[in-house]
Amino acid sequence: MTPSINADRLWQSILELARIGPTSEGGSCRLALSVEDKEARALLLDWCRPLNLHFEQDAIGNMFLSRKGRMDTAAAVAFGSHLDTVPTGGRFDGTVGVLAGLEVMRTLHDANITTGAPLELVNWTNEEGSRFRPAMMGSRVHAANMSLEAALAITDDEGTSVEAALHDSGQAGALVPSPRGWTCWLELHIEQGPVLEASGADIGIVTGTMHARYFQLMVTGEPSHVGPTTMDRRRDSLAAAAEIILAVERIALAAEPGGRASATWIENYPNARGNVANITRLHCDVRHEQAENAVAMEHELRGVLNAIGLRRGVNIAIDPYASFGPVAFDTRLADLLRDKASMRQLTTRDMIAAAGHDSVLMASLTPSAMLFIPSVGGITHNPREYSTKEQIARGAQILLDAVVELAR
Amino acid sequence: MTPSINADRLWQSILELARIGPTSEGGSCRLALSVEDKEARALLLDWCRPLNLHFEQDAIGNMFLSRKGRMDTAAAVAFGSHLDTVPTGGRFDGTVGVLAGLEVMRTLHDANITTGAPLELVNWTNEEGSRFRPAMMGSRVHAANMSLEAALAITDDEGTSVEAALHDSGQAGALVPSPRGWTCWLELHIEQGPVLEASGADIGIVTGTMHARYFQLMVTGEPSHVGPTTMDRRRDSLAAAAEIILAVERIALAAEPGGRASATWIENYPNARGNVANITRLHCDVRHEQAENAVAMEHELRGVLNAIGLRRGVNIAIDPYASFGPVAFDTRLADLLRDKASMRQLTTRDMIAAAGHDSVLMASLTPSAMLFIPSVGGITHNPREYSTKEQIARGAQILLDAVVELAR
Repeated sequence: MTPSINADRLWQSILELARIGPTSEGGSCRLALSVEDKEARALLLDWCRPLNLHFEQDAIGNMFLSRKGRMDTAAAVAFGSHLDTVPTGGRFDGTVGVLAGLEVMRTLHDANITTGAPLELVNWTNEEGSRFRPAMMGSRVHAANMSLEAALAITDDEGTSVEAALHDSGQAGALVPSPRGWTCWLELHIEQGPVLEASGADIGIVTGTMHARYFQLMVTGEPSHVGPTTMDRRRDSLAAAAEIILAVERIALAAEPGGRASATWIENYPNARGNVANITRLHCDVRHEQAENAVAMEHELRGVLNAIGLRRGVNIAIDPYASFGPVAFDTRLADLLRDKASMRQLTTRDMIAAAGHDSVLMASLTPSAMLFIPSVGGITHNPREYSTKEQIARGAQILLDAVVELAR
Repeated sequence: MTPSINADRLWQSILELARIGPTSEGGSCRLALSVEDKEARALLLDWCRPLNLHFEQDAIGNMFLSRKGRMDTAAAVAFGSHLDTVPTGGRFDGTVGVLAGLEVMRTLHDANITTGAPLELVNWTNEEGSRFRPAMMGSRVHAANMSLEAALAITDDEGTSVEAALHDSGQAGALVPSPRGWTCWLELHIEQGPVLEASGADIGIVTGTMHARYFQLMVTGEPSHVGPTTMDRRRDSLAAAAEIILAVERIALAAEPGGRASATWIENYPNARGNVANITRLHCDVRHEQAENAVAMEHELRGVLNAIGLRRGVNIAIDPYASFGPVAFDTRLADLLRDKASMRQLTTRDMIAAAGHDSVLMASLTPSAMLFIPSVGGITHNPREYSTKEQIARGAQILLDAVVELAR
């Protein structure tokens, strides 16, 4: 039997890390490559120092913390997640996966266990994509899903580039981003949904992810005055955007339970109170467990955009700038996780991840698996996001048990 | 007969002033108290210097340029408009009224005519309200419709206060804003609508304005994740705002031809691509020729907000922060303008102004009147805004003719 992880230590570390970038409602805001993200990364390094891990960092800021195995030449077993958050972030999303990985390292260190294969704990840069789109940027660059050059040139809404943010936060590492030859990849994450809690299962075995397609839209109308301009003479880009937002919602409702769609981000010009708007930019996504259904949702969206454009006399440009999935995770790793849970008397439930995760990218490089723990009330990206100390400890234990077997 | 204004000089001055704050499409952007607004004001003062006008400025930046009359103690005849623009401004809105007033001063100066009563040319601060709301800020403070303290504390979307902007642009004058005891007020303005052009009339005699009511709305939902959060669990503030935008549009369509309504300004939080939005702020207005109909439009809007709030589980706070009108302008001044047009063989049409103007505030202080000239295609708040040299010259001539009679 592998040693037991220290549930209290893990819980205290999560709470301590959550205090970096505190929000008024008790959550955390650590946008990618912000000063808060930098501080969280420094705290992770502080915690790793007594564990004798070897730290490396690549040019997109991904952090790799390696623990030697008995076999110098063996490929590493890798695990981790991300420390960045959305602006309305809770304390658990991403952080649980990184700190459960840290707890794996700490437990093995305390028990004086050296695995056969090396181990590697990873903190991926900008998983959330709140500040810099697309999401999962660090793992995308690592997996050559996007080029380093393209990623460095991306700017946030204030015009700061990823390159400048990496430099300013001291996170531009020396390594050229590239696959590191891992034998497999594991990620523990909070579910961020209501399924586990409703079903009463302790552990979610993630068998795959939805297929998601992201769109940046630009609606161009004609500027005019809110007073004298009669309705038939308006080409109101904001009203057109409002129709699009509600159309996305209708498409989402029709696609349930297997699909989801959202319009989340808007920028309006001139955004002046006496002016009918003439340029409105919008971000939306469609996603579905079946890739072909996601494509059909996009097709329906394009039809709606076309109809709105014609009827309102506005131009609607659509930039389908990114996508992820569908991914089927490794079935043998899923079996292993199911076995490890069973050996600890924990119940499991197979599930499809609706959100994007770094594991989606890892699955293109190496056998990969994800395990979920319950999210209380299914609440996430919200200061009220919560998982109990016990729920987190169960997940971390299964992660350790699996890692020890895989690196035996 | 009064002397003729110089149509070419007026046209050239308008084109020269339009080059301050040029936009790529040939329009002008001079937001209130910006560096561009400051430059336009300085050019106006340069042009006034050879005319021996006395310059005074009040603490909200309103500019008063006085020309002596034969009777030192007589009350002045005042006229003018505003030099600030919306972000998508054209070359004529506001500017035509100020520079037609300048042309009145220039023509009298060239003809060596001294009127009985003094004359006063005015440039009002922040008529547009694009940068700092509410619109017509300078004339509101002048007319004690809002306090100087309240106005100075208002901030733009970047957090700069009116007080700081007045200071930075050097426009914080020494006068305490207060009525100046004018015998009457006249404002020439472009129509900003299609009515004059369609009817073939040369001059619009503005008999009054619509009643407009402005609202700042704040929709508060609940943050969540675009992936795992099923539709029934969302409290999406952006989707609620989209419904509001379309409801405002429906209310507007039902209120035509006498009414108008618009949603123009939006701010969304966290405006992150992976997040269902939880705070969306929106600006809208309703307006109607009949005040009771505008109130009924607001009532309908409030009913819609209530229904949306209940159905979507979002809170919608409504701040009815400003209004204007309805105003009935002075009938004797309107008669005078009609007579003056008729004497110049120009055709007139009575009309109601749908937009807010500084004259709305002046009407609470002194007999006031407005005259409109046609806007080609009814296009306004748009780089393609246009009135011909001849159309502008006709308006300026009627303004001069009326001023000379009123100040006789």
